[in-house]
Amino acid sequence: MQLKSDQTIVAPASGSGGAVAIIRVSGPDALAISDRVVRLRKGTVSASKGFSLHFGEALSGGEVVDEVLVSVFRAPRSYTGEDSVEISCHASPFIVHEIVHAFTSCGARMAEAGEFTSRAYLNGKMDLSQAEAVADLISSTSKAASKVSLNQLRGGVSSELGKMREELLKMASLLELELDFGEEEVEFASRESLVNLLDGVIAHVDSLSGTFRTGNAIRRGIPVTIAGNVNAGKSTLLNAILGDDRAIVSPTPGTTRDTVEDTLTIDGHMFRFIDTAGIRESSDDVEKIGIERSFKKISEAEIVLGVLDATDSENDLLNNLSILEKSVNIQQQKLIILLNKVDLTVNKNVNTINKIVSYIGNKYITIKLSAKEKIGLDLLFNELYKVTKAYSVAGNSTIIINARHYDALLRARVPLVSARSAITSSLPSDLIAEDLRQAISILGEITGTITTPDILEEIFGKFCIGK
Amino acid sequence: MQLKSDQTIVAPASGSGGAVAIIRVSGPDALAISDRVVRLRKGTVSASKGFSLHFGEALSGGEVVDEVLVSVFRAPRSYTGEDSVEISCHASPFIVHEIVHAFTSCGARMAEAGEFTSRAYLNGKMDLSQAEAVADLISSTSKAASKVSLNQLRGGVSSELGKMREELLKMASLLELELDFGEEEVEFASRESLVNLLDGVIAHVDSLSGTFRTGNAIRRGIPVTIAGNVNAGKSTLLNAILGDDRAIVSPTPGTTRDTVEDTLTIDGHMFRFIDTAGIRESSDDVEKIGIERSFKKISEAEIVLGVLDATDSENDLLNNLSILEKSVNIQQQKLIILLNKVDLTVNKNVNTINKIVSYIGNKYITIKLSAKEKIGLDLLFNELYKVTKAYSVAGNSTIIINARHYDALLRARVPLVSARSAITSSLPSDLIAEDLRQAISILGEITGTITTPDILEEIFGKFCIGK
Repeated sequence: MQLKSDQTIVAPASGSGGAVAIIRVSGPDALAISDRVVRLRKGTVSASKGFSLHFGEALSGGEVVDEVLVSVFRAPRSYTGEDSVEISCHASPFIVHEIVHAFTSCGARMAEAGEFTSRAYLNGKMDLSQAEAVADLISSTSKAASKVSLNQLRGGVSSELGKMREELLKMASLLELELDFGEEEVEFASRESLVNLLDGVIAHVDSLSGTFRTGNAIRRGIPVTIAGNVNAGKSTLLNAILGDDRAIVSPTPGTTRDTVEDTLTIDGHMFRFIDTAGIRESSDDVEKIGIERSFKKISEAEIVLGVLDATDSENDLLNNLSILEKSVNIQQQKLIILLNKVDLTVNKNVNTINKIVSYIGNKYITIKLSAKEKIGLDLLFNELYKVTKAYSVAGNSTIIINARHYDALLRARVPLVSARSAITSSLPSDLIAEDLRQAISILGEITGTITTPDILEEIFGKFCIGK
Repeated sequence: MQLKSDQTIVAPASGSGGAVAIIRVSGPDALAISDRVVRLRKGTVSASKGFSLHFGEALSGGEVVDEVLVSVFRAPRSYTGEDSVEISCHASPFIVHEIVHAFTSCGARMAEAGEFTSRAYLNGKMDLSQAEAVADLISSTSKAASKVSLNQLRGGVSSELGKMREELLKMASLLELELDFGEEEVEFASRESLVNLLDGVIAHVDSLSGTFRTGNAIRRGIPVTIAGNVNAGKSTLLNAILGDDRAIVSPTPGTTRDTVEDTLTIDGHMFRFIDTAGIRESSDDVEKIGIERSFKKISEAEIVLGVLDATDSENDLLNNLSILEKSVNIQQQKLIILLNKVDLTVNKNVNTINKIVSYIGNKYITIKLSAKEKIGLDLLFNELYKVTKAYSVAGNSTIIINARHYDALLRARVPLVSARSAITSSLPSDLIAEDLRQAISILGEITGTITTPDILEEIFGKFCIGK
């Protein structure tokens, strides 16, 4: 990652196909180089005002390669904060290549991934959390995800952190002032009010990091784990759900071999389905490991689809239900019981099922279905859809969707708690101040107030070219 | 195809993926509807000047869905000739969908394929040949193809036709004036000068339609037919050519089952390779049909790769060479002799080959190669590359690449020739004038001076959405 912005960069910014393509140019010589590549109908690019729009011709090797629209931006009023030009041309890959090539021939170089946005960050047009929101916004696939990212882009996360940072800085300054007075043992900040302030900040950190469960569900899909006995028909159910015509199915890259993950969007809300190995009480060591893994997957879910085999005996059904109940945290997770294989039930079973349903139905939502025959799936989709209401994000609420931010919040909590106990243990103010400074520094990583080239490379390397 | 432009249309105009997406809006209410979908930082869209650029927010259902750049164009200074707005947003499919949906909710409707360009045509911003050039330009995959289309877009074809049309109109008017004088048998136009003028126009039509062979080669790839005896290794050669690492291989849709067609781009020039059934003298009726088809394919090629089996006897080699020579039009086509399977030749063969090469080499370019072992392919590519020089299009030359135009030129020639013979046979001026009017009408189809809704639907239906 080139972080120097003394060079002028160029890249196609729009996708392939379509009718129109955009080429983006930014840097100190963006206007001068554009004068050589683009001939405007009137005047020149370098003589144009910022935020102006022109009709012209793109030239390559002295020949006209296309008729284009040219948008001119002048520093600092541009995306990057530098002089910038956007060329809108006909969307032929050949023409796009020719125009980009004309720019590189005249002294621009190809932009690296994320380089336009990294310049926006370096030129103070946005902080790091806003820059990250750009990439998230582009890759958002649901209303909730784009809303959360847009809020972050518009400074939602930054302003929450700014408030905390300000309070912590004030506290730290007061404590450091006390140090200047050395032996005199003055207290500019009452220890009681400091504890109160710290409690407020810790609560704020907790509430923000607490949104990550929601944020992660929005970003990666609401996690739904399919659990149940080996023969209950879990995989058939997964296929039935994902194969449904009204769903958009996309494979999740990087899924582990022993758990199957796939996402599905129901009415604009993304779900992430996780199949698990069958759970049962077992004394076999190898099987125990698989079952442990299933329990872990169950604990990560927002929704657990507990699959029971309707053709089982009453005893087995109750036994399997009890295993499911034990593995789910009813306080935090939603358990939906699916009585599968209802197409195969005989008279004897029907009585059992009705008995079971009346028993379970009071405690959990219970759906009779056949994954194989695709009976009752609509009832399941309705139940899933109800859950999405919890993920409809209010306009201005700040939600953490970035694992890097979540990690920083968790790490910042440690010195904050340490500072609090230092105060209540009446430890010297320099120790308290040191903890506070550490927390400030960690929180600063999120917005990029404090950062390293490594972090920047990591962040912007994930962007696409042209952004 | 809705040809009425009393409605406002909207569509995504850029391709999928990338960092930035463009949404295009055009029609009488484009500015008013944009006021409801886009909130500018300063002022409103409808109060903005044409060719102005603004920063703003796109709204959907009262909520901000993205931060956007807004380009405002006012009739007639826009692509369509109507009031138009282009929104540049973050390239999330979700955001693009939300913004397009916001426009359709406020009274715009989704544009049909090619509808923006068809409005440009209907509003007199471009004629039909220029409109067709837009689609060709977008789908151009080589320098030559984009150059020819750009020339057409900039009015190259239109102006050539305009000149002819003017001359023909002048002739027709003079002849019709003579009719007004009825019995008096005046001749405003000397018959000799009319014949000269007509000869000029016919020569012009011929020279334009003569460029179609080149135009077609540029658009669809320079046709290269692989011909030769059944066992000469033609298919292996095709695979060797197309499988080469430095080539971009793309399958051509709609290829017939009995001839294989594939295109390959060598240094920016597209070739279209056509495999044929083996040719030899045969008395079998079914085989004769296949051979006839091969001969037809050979006649359509610009380049014929005549494949000989180097392990054949001298007699067979000379015999097969003679069949190849007979099937190629040496005046118009380039024959390249490929002595294949040189990896399998033994001492005896080497002498034969050298003898053959010294015999053929004087008449045709002869290359010794092994398709199977990929020996000598670079020599072949060099020869093919030499041919591309003939297809490097000079800046301003007009080349017909559109089959519809070519067809019209051929059809227009008929009444022109008929008019000429009417003059030389001293037929009455009304008959001559009628022929001329017919030619004018046919030539008018190309630019759309004379047209029907069917033709328009046919042409714009092939466009992509958003253009």
